[in-house]
Amino acid sequence: MTGRTRRDEQVSATREALLDAAERLFAEYGVHAVANRQISLAAGQGNNAAVSYHFGTKMDLVRAVARRHAERIEVGRLRMMAEIGDSADLRDWMACAVRPVTEHLEALGTPSWYARFIAQVTSDPALRADMTEAFAAASPSMEKLQDGLNRCLPDLPPEVHAERAAMTRHLITQMTAERERALADNKQTARASWREAANGLIDAVVALWRAPVTRGD
Amino acid sequence: MTGRTRRDEQVSATREALLDAAERLFAEYGVHAVANRQISLAAGQGNNAAVSYHFGTKMDLVRAVARRHAERIEVGRLRMMAEIGDSADLRDWMACAVRPVTEHLEALGTPSWYARFIAQVTSDPALRADMTEAFAAASPSMEKLQDGLNRCLPDLPPEVHAERAAMTRHLITQMTAERERALADNKQTARASWREAANGLIDAVVALWRAPVTRGD
Repeated sequence: MTGRTRRDEQVSATREALLDAAERLFAEYGVHAVANRQISLAAGQGNNAAVSYHFGTKMDLVRAVARRHAERIEVGRLRMMAEIGDSADLRDWMACAVRPVTEHLEALGTPSWYARFIAQVTSDPALRADMTEAFAAASPSMEKLQDGLNRCLPDLPPEVHAERAAMTRHLITQMTAERERALADNKQTARASWREAANGLIDAVVALWRAPVTRGD
Repeated sequence: MTGRTRRDEQVSATREALLDAAERLFAEYGVHAVANRQISLAAGQGNNAAVSYHFGTKMDLVRAVARRHAERIEVGRLRMMAEIGDSADLRDWMACAVRPVTEHLEALGTPSWYARFIAQVTSDPALRADMTEAFAAASPSMEKLQDGLNRCLPDLPPEVHAERAAMTRHLITQMTAERERALADNKQTARASWREAANGLIDAVVALWRAPVTRGD
């Protein structure tokens, strides 16, 4: 092994350790509450400047943590979408919204931190806009999902469509974070597996998209 | 006015200023990210120890902020429940879950901070358990709501009931926080009024409670 390669491997291991520490600390305490210095320490880096050296700003680090999961989720979602083609069954599309996330969490094992990381990041007013953009860029599948929804629900008014998309996002984020935390704390969960938890989420979001729209005052 | 009374009024005004500042700062930055010193400063108190003098711990302050809203919401909810009596219409009960909150937010005017404060507090792992207990104690109406739900949906398995109760809570918390933030930032909202936003929420939660339950793997 050349010196060059060993050095590359060291850098890569340090980056992974920093990403792991950042993900866990952000998930537990929120992005604002955690200093780069604490992340370096938790990653076993004596150098307080390790985060800025390897990633740049804290925001760059948040993006890097999100990216390692988003890419894998996107692959799963595109595969599911290829299977359903141009289905006009709302349940197929909602499965594509939910299962790639729960399958990724299942693959991570317990304890995982990703669901709680996402809940923290999306509840942070300063990060939300930036992250929404980053997610959209990493997820061309979301555009396809949008098309599928429009095909299933052609008469839904645009503002109600936007509202229900937000509700779907919140339910997936909050319910997966809650289940991830319960698993990590060895507490009781409503469902025995991620697969069944996904069933419960899909039942709920399909129903809310199909709900009649009450109008006026 | 006696000296005693003037002193009481001063104390009362200081406490209100501290509660206002805490509510706003917690809502914007999260409970962990805000130091008692910053709250004192934002409330115009030169004394860094003002929070501990008037409220005790930061947790006591969080409870005090929550309490000033919870009591008013509870009054509204009990009044609505008296009107519907022992209704077996799920929509009546979901209206009792949603409208007391949106009506309180409407009464607060714009900008308000309460919805975002609740979103922050309930997403904080350390605060969640404590707050859930405090809310339950302040809200005997929640037990009545539970009874109403059981009457409307007698065959729902208990674990699905628990799951949908969590979904309902998340939707109310997240959607009101999102709308409150948009109003404060003068951004576009999906609905023109809190009353219409409540319609959208009630449509969704009624549908999700009624959703068929998918079983097995």
